[in-house]
Amino acid sequence: MKDIVILGAGNVGTHLGKAFHEAGMPVVQVYNRTLGPANSLAELLGCACTDNLEDLTGKASLYVITVTDDAIGEVAARFPFRDRLLVHTSGTTNMHVLKSGSAQYGVFYPLQTFSKEIPVDFRKVPLCLEASDTSCRDLLEDIAGKLTGRVIWIDSEKRRFIHVAAVFACNFVNHMYHLAEEILREHDLPFDLLQPLIEETARKAMTDNPGNVQTGPARRNNLEVIRAHLGMLSAMPAFKELYGQISDSIRKKYASD
Amino acid sequence: MKDIVILGAGNVGTHLGKAFHEAGMPVVQVYNRTLGPANSLAELLGCACTDNLEDLTGKASLYVITVTDDAIGEVAARFPFRDRLLVHTSGTTNMHVLKSGSAQYGVFYPLQTFSKEIPVDFRKVPLCLEASDTSCRDLLEDIAGKLTGRVIWIDSEKRRFIHVAAVFACNFVNHMYHLAEEILREHDLPFDLLQPLIEETARKAMTDNPGNVQTGPARRNNLEVIRAHLGMLSAMPAFKELYGQISDSIRKKYASD
Repeated sequence: MKDIVILGAGNVGTHLGKAFHEAGMPVVQVYNRTLGPANSLAELLGCACTDNLEDLTGKASLYVITVTDDAIGEVAARFPFRDRLLVHTSGTTNMHVLKSGSAQYGVFYPLQTFSKEIPVDFRKVPLCLEASDTSCRDLLEDIAGKLTGRVIWIDSEKRRFIHVAAVFACNFVNHMYHLAEEILREHDLPFDLLQPLIEETARKAMTDNPGNVQTGPARRNNLEVIRAHLGMLSAMPAFKELYGQISDSIRKKYASD
Repeated sequence: MKDIVILGAGNVGTHLGKAFHEAGMPVVQVYNRTLGPANSLAELLGCACTDNLEDLTGKASLYVITVTDDAIGEVAARFPFRDRLLVHTSGTTNMHVLKSGSAQYGVFYPLQTFSKEIPVDFRKVPLCLEASDTSCRDLLEDIAGKLTGRVIWIDSEKRRFIHVAAVFACNFVNHMYHLAEEILREHDLPFDLLQPLIEETARKAMTDNPGNVQTGPARRNNLEVIRAHLGMLSAMPAFKELYGQISDSIRKKYASD
């Protein structure tokens, strides 16, 4: 039996905690800087909780830091065991930040977007792993393989580029959805009008290659339509500015066509 | 039987022509400014073709202009029948541009992205319709209802805002995918790593509301990560610029949180 301790009761901690639980790897303790969230997650998972790193149980197989990037170093430095496997779940943070915490460490980065209320099927989430040595590697491979069908070994240098790419493909994409939704709302039109278009855009980019399937006024360098759209967005200056910037970026990509 | 004539053998004409065909409304003639594309599409659909608007058959129920926005007015002006139903398929162009062509006119705007080689399930495509009078309205409603389960009556003013929203939700989203794909390729990483993330991002935005489910460094106003990402993109200045612009846009949206 692989017992898990979760350090950080935020979005990632909650989703990962549930996934461990469902995969038959019990979370035995939740730590959080403040007790409220630790308690909520511990209740959900039926385990102990604490707001004091000194009180951590020493009996788990894996300790998973899921706090925000800037707090990882601090939690690691106060981790009370030198010989337990300690991992973080950050796309950007170097693995070796954990060296101060334990001699056995690694990275367990789920390449997915997590919102508190929305369940995630973890078996399809790519887990990007990194380990400080081969024994950590074997244990992480074993645990990750129980959670997902997609385990990828990636070093810290490459992982942070995956994270930047994910910011474009997820966070920036969602911002585009958000702006589209606001434009429609402004004109009393429902966002779900765009559902088939959004699904098809994602499907097409993955079937082919996004560079090959670009469409629209900027791709066709249709300055008349671009100008008309900029005019229509005059009342929404922030939208107009971004429309111009992204259209310029697309036009430059295909300028030599 | 509803016979259709397609005026313009590009992407939209091809996809729409196939959809009419499959829905049991035969395309009887294809016009194109140059004969090559007209001929290809006519062969595919098993019908006649021409590059001369004077040669159009007068026996069709519906004439669908699928040329680029800037050529719609010209094709309409040279349309040889005053009493046939003439529509265009543009998101941006006002319906009344067709007035010079026929006394019966309308709009037939499929809210979808079309690439030549990629088949589209037309039954799920929202068709935004507009008509010059009630008899045109009845005919368009009838024809559109045979193609898709989603018929929406929208006037020209609202339709162009749907088109702007679609540029954000489709063209700009695909550009984000494209940049993500290039960042990964630059580091010898496969784009399909991002597939679960891309699918989840689309699913989440449509289940909830994109404004509610935004995640990432800009949403959290995590300047340290943003700065690190900008540094990593120094070798790709166009990417760096856009990363900064979109991150600023996200940060401003949530600045009051």
